[in-house]
Amino acid sequence: MAMEGFRGFLGLLVSALLVGFLSVIFTLIWILHYREGLGWDGGALEFNWHPVLVVTGFIFIQGIAIIVYRLPWTWKCSKLLMKSIHAGLNTVAAILVIISLVAVFDYHNARNIPNMYSLHSWVGLIAVILYFLQLVLGFFIFLLPWAPPSLRAVLMPIHVYSGLLIFGTAIVAALMGITEKLFFALTNPAYSSFPPEGVFTNTLGLLILLFGALIFWIVTRPQWKRPKETNSTLLRPNGGTTEGVESPMADNPDNNMDKSDSELNSEGAARKRNLALDEAGQRSTM
Amino acid sequence: MAMEGFRGFLGLLVSALLVGFLSVIFTLIWILHYREGLGWDGGALEFNWHPVLVVTGFIFIQGIAIIVYRLPWTWKCSKLLMKSIHAGLNTVAAILVIISLVAVFDYHNARNIPNMYSLHSWVGLIAVILYFLQLVLGFFIFLLPWAPPSLRAVLMPIHVYSGLLIFGTAIVAALMGITEKLFFALTNPAYSSFPPEGVFTNTLGLLILLFGALIFWIVTRPQWKRPKETNSTLLRPNGGTTEGVESPMADNPDNNMDKSDSELNSEGAARKRNLALDEAGQRSTM
Repeated sequence: MAMEGFRGFLGLLVSALLVGFLSVIFTLIWILHYREGLGWDGGALEFNWHPVLVVTGFIFIQGIAIIVYRLPWTWKCSKLLMKSIHAGLNTVAAILVIISLVAVFDYHNARNIPNMYSLHSWVGLIAVILYFLQLVLGFFIFLLPWAPPSLRAVLMPIHVYSGLLIFGTAIVAALMGITEKLFFALTNPAYSSFPPEGVFTNTLGLLILLFGALIFWIVTRPQWKRPKETNSTLLRPNGGTTEGVESPMADNPDNNMDKSDSELNSEGAARKRNLALDEAGQRSTM
Repeated sequence: MAMEGFRGFLGLLVSALLVGFLSVIFTLIWILHYREGLGWDGGALEFNWHPVLVVTGFIFIQGIAIIVYRLPWTWKCSKLLMKSIHAGLNTVAAILVIISLVAVFDYHNARNIPNMYSLHSWVGLIAVILYFLQLVLGFFIFLLPWAPPSLRAVLMPIHVYSGLLIFGTAIVAALMGITEKLFFALTNPAYSSFPPEGVFTNTLGLLILLFGALIFWIVTRPQWKRPKETNSTLLRPNGGTTEGVESPMADNPDNNMDKSDSELNSEGAARKRNLALDEAGQRSTM
């Protein structure tokens, strides 16, 4: 399927993937080269999983999950498949985030450091709670087939808005986390004396911000939105390439069908109404 | 002019104003009650202008400037007037931001504290530079009448996107700034022992984030967008309420006009084409 401004999209997608990938690599270099590396010992090595998993899951994977509907190569795939990929990526990210929280709470408790006193921890925990709410609500309302189309239409703009808000809040929390960690860790030489680790990790912060900016641009261009499903793909159980023949009757699905076709069609029709409302909801948001 | 979902808009607008106002009040209480207050002495009192002016200008006023086109009471005002208010508010904010930067550089230099080493300072300075670029470009391209409509149409989606990106980046920088300051200032009792100042200023951080979330919701609802200008408001130099009489001819501005009316009309028509493209640009973004 043709996409308006495809070359621009491709350039931005490649940039986003590159910057997101670089953010993960920079986080790993920070932890493995400048910090003590990774481990699960109740000490600094365990804490270090926190930034690695947050940047990988809560930033990079969440960002990709947000733009997955916009990849034109997937427009021939069913909406259900794309929803499953969107939900699957967010589930993987959510699991990484939970492990990252276990790592930091475990580290604090082992060292008798208080939990949840900093603004970073408040904002980060709010983002994680909203992310799980979003995941569960999204699963029951948009992935499972039971929610009425009218409910989906009402909730889709909220789902899109809160998804972007959570992603933005995760970035805020990540940059506050980097700030905290650098002030804690860089004492000799001090952060204020421009040590290589400070400059390097500041650059990581800018990469995360740039990744967010690219994802926001890609996801708010109306011309790059997945097109609405059309009758031809939804209401022709006997048409299309598998049959190899297009009969004039294929345009009217009420002809030539037996009982099972009828069920398929009424399902198809419901799904179509559904998707149309769904799309209307999405389109009204951005 | 009627607005779809006006009561919802009103509720959100009042919430945004309240939360924005509370953010400024909380910043003042933080500085005047918990910190040393305000002054211009090269010391801590001078530094303290930094958070006060940033939250007032770069967060609160910038946020209001973003949603000013969406106030339905202003829809009867000319687009030029609204652009001037939008540009005026952003100019006020920019001046406050510059003073806030002078305060912090002055403080650092007086105390021989290095400038620009932290991620907060990097992100903050980038936001300020982009804000000034946005202001100057916006002034020359959208406020002054010389830019061709096609250029405006191409640049409007970028203007809208970068405006929201800069606002979001200002919030990121503000929350990192709070984080830095609390770790510096709260040593006895430590930030980690939940002193009142820590809890209070964390709450300020959440208020700033909530203000941003409300502004983003208000500005991305398509149904709350300022309607396109219509012929009736633009092409009737002799119609409207000042005359008190509506003639059928008023619908065709090429009738009943002398030389000066003709100029007015061709200006009006150019402005209308202009605005239509302009609006098309904006509408394609959100």
